Amino acid sequence: MELHVAFLPEEAGDCRGRAAAVIDVIRATTSLLTMVERGCDEIVIAPTVDAARRYRAAHADMLLAGERGGRAPEGFDYGNSPAAFARADFAGRRVVFATTNGTRALHIARDAPVVLIASLRNRTAAARVLVEEATRDALDLMVICSGRERRFGLDDAYTAGAIVEAILAGPAGRDVAPTDAALAARVLFRAHPDPEALFRTTWAGRNVVEIGLEEDLRVCAAQDCSVTVPRLGDRVRLLEE
Amino acid sequence: MELHVAFLPEEAGDCRGRAAAVIDVIRATTSLLTMVERGCDEIVIAPTVDAARRYRAAHADMLLAGERGGRAPEGFDYGNSPAAFARADFAGRRVVFATTNGTRALHIARDAPVVLIASLRNRTAAARVLVEEATRDALDLMVICSGRERRFGLDDAYTAGAIVEAILAGPAGRDVAPTDAALAARVLFRAHPDPEALFRTTWAGRNVVEIGLEEDLRVCAAQDCSVTVPRLGDRVRLLEE
Repeated sequence: MELHVAFLPEEAGDCRGRAAAVIDVIRATTSLLTMVERGCDEIVIAPTVDAARRYRAAHADMLLAGERGGRAPEGFDYGNSPAAFARADFAGRRVVFATTNGTRALHIARDAPVVLIASLRNRTAAARVLVEEATRDALDLMVICSGRERRFGLDDAYTAGAIVEAILAGPAGRDVAPTDAALAARVLFRAHPDPEALFRTTWAGRNVVEIGLEEDLRVCAAQDCSVTVPRLGDRVRLLEE
Repeated sequence: MELHVAFLPEEAGDCRGRAAAVIDVIRATTSLLTMVERGCDEIVIAPTVDAARRYRAAHADMLLAGERGGRAPEGFDYGNSPAAFARADFAGRRVVFATTNGTRALHIARDAPVVLIASLRNRTAAARVLVEEATRDALDLMVICSGRERRFGLDDAYTAGAIVEAILAGPAGRDVAPTDAALAARVLFRAHPDPEALFRTTWAGRNVVEIGLEEDLRVCAAQDCSVTVPRLGDRVRLLEE
């Protein structure tokens, strides 16, 4: 099984024949994980704030979440804050969630037979499920980073490395052939024992701190505290327009 | 000054307003450096073997160099072997050089006001010239990796990190703002004290060893043994078709 990391979604290439894990650790995939853990019945991922608004207008029972410049747009019930989601009760609720960055990666990954939603919080569980799915269906492995504004994001690359480490150290590690990108991601992971300190130095992390949501940084940087692995098509889906 | 690293040429974006250094360390930019050092009057870089052949047919005085599957195609005077170039005498000669991978990065960089040809052998000199050019003309800094078959190449990323390290440790280091990608490249550089050992583990390095050109790997992995910094437009130019 080849294990590749796409540092930007566009590098992923053809995702058929690959089990994929998508990362937008600060903050979209951490938010999605938290919403699923808090009991959401369904999360519909919209590519823009306006698309999310239109969808909610037609589905009045749904909650509206998302961000513009890091904050909840006017009229939204929630922003894109995993710390706030962790305090919310979503049991039995449906949410439409607007995230430009994470959506792009999920759209590119959608041809993969399995698309997992990964973050640092569930990295070992995501690695395990990814390998199980790939082994069962003879797929290659692909970890897709969202990046920031079409550029490499160190926070996502680090998290990809955390997943690579878990895969290579796991029971199927010997059957996996990492690409140059997968090896590089692992080096980034191994070089930084303190993810929160690293995240503070990244473009995405600095932005979150600047808008006063430092609390989110801590949530995004917590490692291996969840065994939930959301997947596209199971309570989480992309809005078709 | 912003300092960015594009791990693939397509990530470079708009190169106007940036001083650029292009890397294809195994082997095209190491070869180009060596040809310039050996006294070439002019190197014309062709995007394909066929384009190089046609150009030479019209310029019988030129030497023909390049690779297909790592080796010199039939009728070529040279392959793409920096070790072989280092033994050749190019004084006063003109060469047409076919390199698919390196050409793509150079074409993408060509809108930059300065395009340097960088490798591990000249990394500190390339860093110095890049900063000098950027400072004089108030440009940002961009290091562009060629990658392999449209994927991240660890050898190029490592070399980019070696240049980032030299820039940030240099006299202008305090005026430089590294992006996430630049910081990540530096981590890759710092994590590997032995570039030859690292290069052997990369896709490009394994290929060179497999075709029996291990000697080239040693040439490509030698650090800071040249102060020559070739640049596009000065004895090195892209073939226009």
